Amino acid sequence: MNQNYIIPNQWSIIEEGFEAERVRSSESLFSLGNGAMGQRANFEENYTGETFQGSYIAGIYYPDKTRVGWWKNGYPEYFAKVLNAPNWIGIHVEINNEILDLATCKSIENYRRELNMKEGWYKRSFEAVMIDETRVKVESIRFLSLQIDELGAIRYSVTPLNREAKITFIPYIDAGIENEDTNWEEKFWEPIEILDDELCTSVTARTLKTRFEACTYMHNELAIDSIPINIDKTIHSKVDYIAHSYTHLVAVNSTFTLFKYGGYVTSLNHDRTTLREAAEKVVSIALEAGFDKLLAQQREAWDAIWQMADITIEGDVKAQQGIRFNIFQLNQTYLGKDDRLNIGPKGFTGEKYGGSTYWDTEAYCIPFYMATKDEKVARSLLKYRYNHLEKAIENAEKLGFTNGAALYPMVTMNGEECHNEWEITFEEIHRNGAISFAIFNYLRYTGDYSYIPEMGLEVMIGIARFWHQRASFSTFQNKYVILGVTGPNEYENNVNNNWYTNYIAQWCIQFAIEHIEKVKTGFPEDYSRIMGVTKLTENEIQQWIKVAENMYFPYSEKHGIFLQQDGFLDKPQITVSDLPKEQRPINQKWSWDRILRSPYIKQADVLQGFYFFEDHFSKDLLERHFDFYEPFTVHESSLSPCVHSIQAAILGRMEQAYTFYLRTSRLDLDDYNKEVHEGLHITSMAGTWMSIVEGFGGMRIKEDKMSFEPRIPMQWEAYSFKVNFRGVIVKLTVKHGKVKLLLEGNMPINVILNGEEITLHPNKELEC
Amino acid sequence: MNQNYIIPNQWSIIEEGFEAERVRSSESLFSLGNGAMGQRANFEENYTGETFQGSYIAGIYYPDKTRVGWWKNGYPEYFAKVLNAPNWIGIHVEINNEILDLATCKSIENYRRELNMKEGWYKRSFEAVMIDETRVKVESIRFLSLQIDELGAIRYSVTPLNREAKITFIPYIDAGIENEDTNWEEKFWEPIEILDDELCTSVTARTLKTRFEACTYMHNELAIDSIPINIDKTIHSKVDYIAHSYTHLVAVNSTFTLFKYGGYVTSLNHDRTTLREAAEKVVSIALEAGFDKLLAQQREAWDAIWQMADITIEGDVKAQQGIRFNIFQLNQTYLGKDDRLNIGPKGFTGEKYGGSTYWDTEAYCIPFYMATKDEKVARSLLKYRYNHLEKAIENAEKLGFTNGAALYPMVTMNGEECHNEWEITFEEIHRNGAISFAIFNYLRYTGDYSYIPEMGLEVMIGIARFWHQRASFSTFQNKYVILGVTGPNEYENNVNNNWYTNYIAQWCIQFAIEHIEKVKTGFPEDYSRIMGVTKLTENEIQQWIKVAENMYFPYSEKHGIFLQQDGFLDKPQITVSDLPKEQRPINQKWSWDRILRSPYIKQADVLQGFYFFEDHFSKDLLERHFDFYEPFTVHESSLSPCVHSIQAAILGRMEQAYTFYLRTSRLDLDDYNKEVHEGLHITSMAGTWMSIVEGFGGMRIKEDKMSFEPRIPMQWEAYSFKVNFRGVIVKLTVKHGKVKLLLEGNMPINVILNGEEITLHPNKELEC
Repeated sequence: MNQNYIIPNQWSIIEEGFEAERVRSSESLFSLGNGAMGQRANFEENYTGETFQGSYIAGIYYPDKTRVGWWKNGYPEYFAKVLNAPNWIGIHVEINNEILDLATCKSIENYRRELNMKEGWYKRSFEAVMIDETRVKVESIRFLSLQIDELGAIRYSVTPLNREAKITFIPYIDAGIENEDTNWEEKFWEPIEILDDELCTSVTARTLKTRFEACTYMHNELAIDSIPINIDKTIHSKVDYIAHSYTHLVAVNSTFTLFKYGGYVTSLNHDRTTLREAAEKVVSIALEAGFDKLLAQQREAWDAIWQMADITIEGDVKAQQGIRFNIFQLNQTYLGKDDRLNIGPKGFTGEKYGGSTYWDTEAYCIPFYMATKDEKVARSLLKYRYNHLEKAIENAEKLGFTNGAALYPMVTMNGEECHNEWEITFEEIHRNGAISFAIFNYLRYTGDYSYIPEMGLEVMIGIARFWHQRASFSTFQNKYVILGVTGPNEYENNVNNNWYTNYIAQWCIQFAIEHIEKVKTGFPEDYSRIMGVTKLTENEIQQWIKVAENMYFPYSEKHGIFLQQDGFLDKPQITVSDLPKEQRPINQKWSWDRILRSPYIKQADVLQGFYFFEDHFSKDLLERHFDFYEPFTVHESSLSPCVHSIQAAILGRMEQAYTFYLRTSRLDLDDYNKEVHEGLHITSMAGTWMSIVEGFGGMRIKEDKMSFEPRIPMQWEAYSFKVNFRGVIVKLTVKHGKVKLLLEGNMPINVILNGEEITLHPNKELEC
Repeated sequence: MNQNYIIPNQWSIIEEGFEAERVRSSESLFSLGNGAMGQRANFEENYTGETFQGSYIAGIYYPDKTRVGWWKNGYPEYFAKVLNAPNWIGIHVEINNEILDLATCKSIENYRRELNMKEGWYKRSFEAVMIDETRVKVESIRFLSLQIDELGAIRYSVTPLNREAKITFIPYIDAGIENEDTNWEEKFWEPIEILDDELCTSVTARTLKTRFEACTYMHNELAIDSIPINIDKTIHSKVDYIAHSYTHLVAVNSTFTLFKYGGYVTSLNHDRTTLREAAEKVVSIALEAGFDKLLAQQREAWDAIWQMADITIEGDVKAQQGIRFNIFQLNQTYLGKDDRLNIGPKGFTGEKYGGSTYWDTEAYCIPFYMATKDEKVARSLLKYRYNHLEKAIENAEKLGFTNGAALYPMVTMNGEECHNEWEITFEEIHRNGAISFAIFNYLRYTGDYSYIPEMGLEVMIGIARFWHQRASFSTFQNKYVILGVTGPNEYENNVNNNWYTNYIAQWCIQFAIEHIEKVKTGFPEDYSRIMGVTKLTENEIQQWIKVAENMYFPYSEKHGIFLQQDGFLDKPQITVSDLPKEQRPINQKWSWDRILRSPYIKQADVLQGFYFFEDHFSKDLLERHFDFYEPFTVHESSLSPCVHSIQAAILGRMEQAYTFYLRTSRLDLDDYNKEVHEGLHITSMAGTWMSIVEGFGGMRIKEDKMSFEPRIPMQWEAYSFKVNFRGVIVKLTVKHGKVKLLLEGNMPINVILNGEEITLHPNKELEC
């Protein structure tokens, strides 16, 4: 059974009633982020129950020791991991000297959390009865400012309900934090300096080894019934911790409020010597505006995002909540402002996957950012990889490749490989294909060719070189084979001739050759620069062609399908429907060997190839492959249901498409994979977006035009979305039987609707 | 180039001249052991150069945290690792207050090490010139007593050569040691008690978690020019350390000698409360005998071993030195006195492989111990696995097997799995086959059927059950397949249908069924007990038969050979001769994926099967497989050359057999695999023994008779060995053209020599 406690709502994520066993899950679901920092929905006040503390700063990581059974040549010495950052949200609260702690107080009533996605804030309220029978009402609202992305703000209020009470607020900063995933109780931050004056209280700390510096700061203000008051404070401090303590005797039904402004300024964005100064500046700006105005600005900033990115669904609140949750979290994670950053699979909501960049960005996230933001954002994501090309070449050299062959890391923070399982690090090489595919996708979508001569072609050449060298000739097959790989389906390791890998390898070579020619003709200066750098020869290209043209693809004549890999048919052909429920998810119930020798597929693999290269295959062929592979697919990767939803929609199987849509859009809200407590699946959220736009909306780029083939699930009355396409914005609305298209822009454009070309005129709704 | 500094000698391992870069290598090569404890050849005195300190106590281990990138279900929470034990050999030496340290003294001359294998002692001597120009001669001799296996003894002498000198001996015990392989600077011992009186100085310490207790003790005596003297001592002690300090002004050419008796008594063999008492007892016995008598006893004990185990080779000193080194080290490691112990791949010479038990014991070591010791020793090794049957069943259950299927661990100390790489732990399941094979081998060799009804059959049933469940039916092949395994050749992981694995799986089932029938008929009481325990049904046996009879074996019609695994022919068919020397050993030069997709074979795999089941295959077939696979084999496992040596001998390729023999017998002495500094390859040394006895001697058991087909390498004038066969001892001597057989025993027996049956009469040499 999936979890089912989130209350359906169009714009908010809501939890009602306190259940200790839901705390870790809700800490993930109610997370906040603003692209520069993030915060799990940990309580401000003390909590001695099960919790997973997480505060994160984008771009701040630590090179952890790699822990493996037996060392293998080529493993990275260290891998970057996201660090739990100093805690700026903490506020200890005492009621008549008793610590407020939801794990120990006498009772909790009217407990409620709300994550308001429309406006970008998170509120929690409850009534607690203390051991001494004092009943207090607590309300806390907080947000991470989109506008001032080094700033967060909290309004924390306590109201005694049955008697006057002595209430103490102890807001603090704590740099003595650990990582949840630290087996060895290591600390990663060393404190440098604590400073404290009327304007700003700060702890500056430095990460070990990477030596990032972060100044974590706070400024506190107090009010009684909304009227500011001054209260003398006591200061407690340790080497990595500072707290202010404010005590006040509060009358019954009177509300004592703490405003805490805080956050991080870091050496990523400031000179080390000016961190404190920068923090003071942020505090000054915050104080000038005040809490209410900052919150109003937050609403405006989110409103601007939703203007473009919102998808509406009528008649199905859960589906509506799901898609908005996905869009909200994607925007909380990455806004495209800083080309050193990327999109970690868990965003700012957990530590798993090290917070680093995976192929998810290229394979799943690029379309969302292309369609809902300025195309510069997608270009910035592509440039991230261009900037890492040299390290990708070094990475390939470590594995024995030569001559500028590039292997992009499976997981990275700064271009270096950050993962150390041989079957992934060394063998899950299809990731390289996604890097080229994203360039293709960007070009197709934006029409911006300039990226290719400027940067993309060098990347494409490095990748083509890798595939050329990685394939080997099989005299037995009289073909080129690619041995020893892990495909997108990570439930198979070290297989030979994974169809997806072989296919994308062939395509990468062909794609590179196509654009070498185009750049040669169209951009001779760039061409000669690139040839100078890469030292590519005609002879080498001929070698590439030999490999691409003679690539082997495993195929079953009997089934008329491409085989996921050599030997797939030797597996017991038992489908998921034969798998007892209590054995799922198999990745939590089965040993690894059992998973590997089963036919079960973690995520789209052959079908991933059909998704990327849709135009290469007929609908019949898609149907045959879908029908063969889907029944073996356990969808235990968050990246699986979205691809299946899109393909089911293409095949006109709307019920199935809808089921997969719910699974992808509510994956975390309903915790399909029993792991939401570890954090959210951020990158797959872009897949959810694709399920609607590409799946139901049938949006494609065909011959430089945008095309739609809209379909609507039975369960919905209507849906709508906007896409930003080459400087214009097109809005599609679908109600049963009717499709509306609206163009925002100045010039008419032609789009293709259900195969027919039509002209859209600016700001004039076209109904068909 | 292999290393080449060990001076050839019939009976000793000798090094001359000090080279700092050889220290770690020699520390391995000159190691001492007595089956109960072991000691790398670390210097007694201080040494600040590169060194790998290692003292080991048999059976004392620690459950270390398993370190893996990402956790996989089924991994052990902890794995046993051998522990570096407290140091009892240490003697700081000061010459005129200057610390004697070979890394810092002014010069070193006449440096010599000798490991005397005939008599079981290790001697080191040198002259050192100190910074103050004092020249001293140092001689140290030490041994670990075979007779009193808790006792070691050192005689350490210093003679000033050019002036009188104030000499200080500071013998100490140090329990504050770490493991070489400890990345995290963890300590594994906690000190409990230090006691010090005239008879005995001791540090008792306890291992963390496993809570073994070891009392490490010493007693020191002094002499000038062999005349005992008393010198007042100073005592230094810390919580885990105690030292005595003796200073004496020594005249030029006078010799100051320290006798240090020390070692361990442990809670494995004594009640915890009596450890100190036990140590005192050992010291008393030692003192009563004195150093010289102890050394004489050591000679006698080794003489008794050599009486039976020696192999002589005439005309080839290096070959002679090699085989004796192998026999010596095997006896230092395991003497068969304690059925809780087994033979770790590195014995007492290093930490790699955790000091635990591998399939090496069953596949390689059993024959040596059967032939050179009482058959009880081999039975004890078999019983070790019987005692672990329950844990092997639990281990299989963790991986999803049921109904008493047993999977023996890949690596173990106490029956629990101690390794955590999925491709090994979960997939290198052929190890299970070796456990059954060893029972077969024991039965064949000793004729002692009693082991089967008493213990062996239960093991065989658990193993047959495992294979039955582990195979799956391929509708594609219409056969049973075994997917996702790692064969003996660990340079292939997660392959399908490894021929060796499938073959031994089939054999294990057939072997079990054969003996279920025999026990049913011959031992009805045991039979009904076993059926009661195992709940085996006729129906289940029928299921086993179905799997065994329909097992799939990969085969190439074109080459007329069994394929190592599915898809082997897709690999680039490039032989080792095409591999540049600087890229070897590939396990140190190549990344793991590159190794995996290469055709290179770490060790005999298909050929291992041909070795085990020699009688199942014709010589022609062997030849074809040898010629196909050997050229791909890099022999980077110590277990590889011996099998190839035997098979080359069978094929009459004496030059090749000889080359492989040298490689196996001098693997460590000449450091073929560039890793001797990590310790010696103990288990493969039994393979070296097989190379001579089974390879050159052609010794086999055929229809309950011993048979010989002797061959002699060109390079040798003669060789001889003895084997203990069912209560009699047969000695074979081969000189060019002549074979002599000598029977030690009371009754005549028939043996087969080159296919002809002949009768041997007691103590009468037969020459052919």
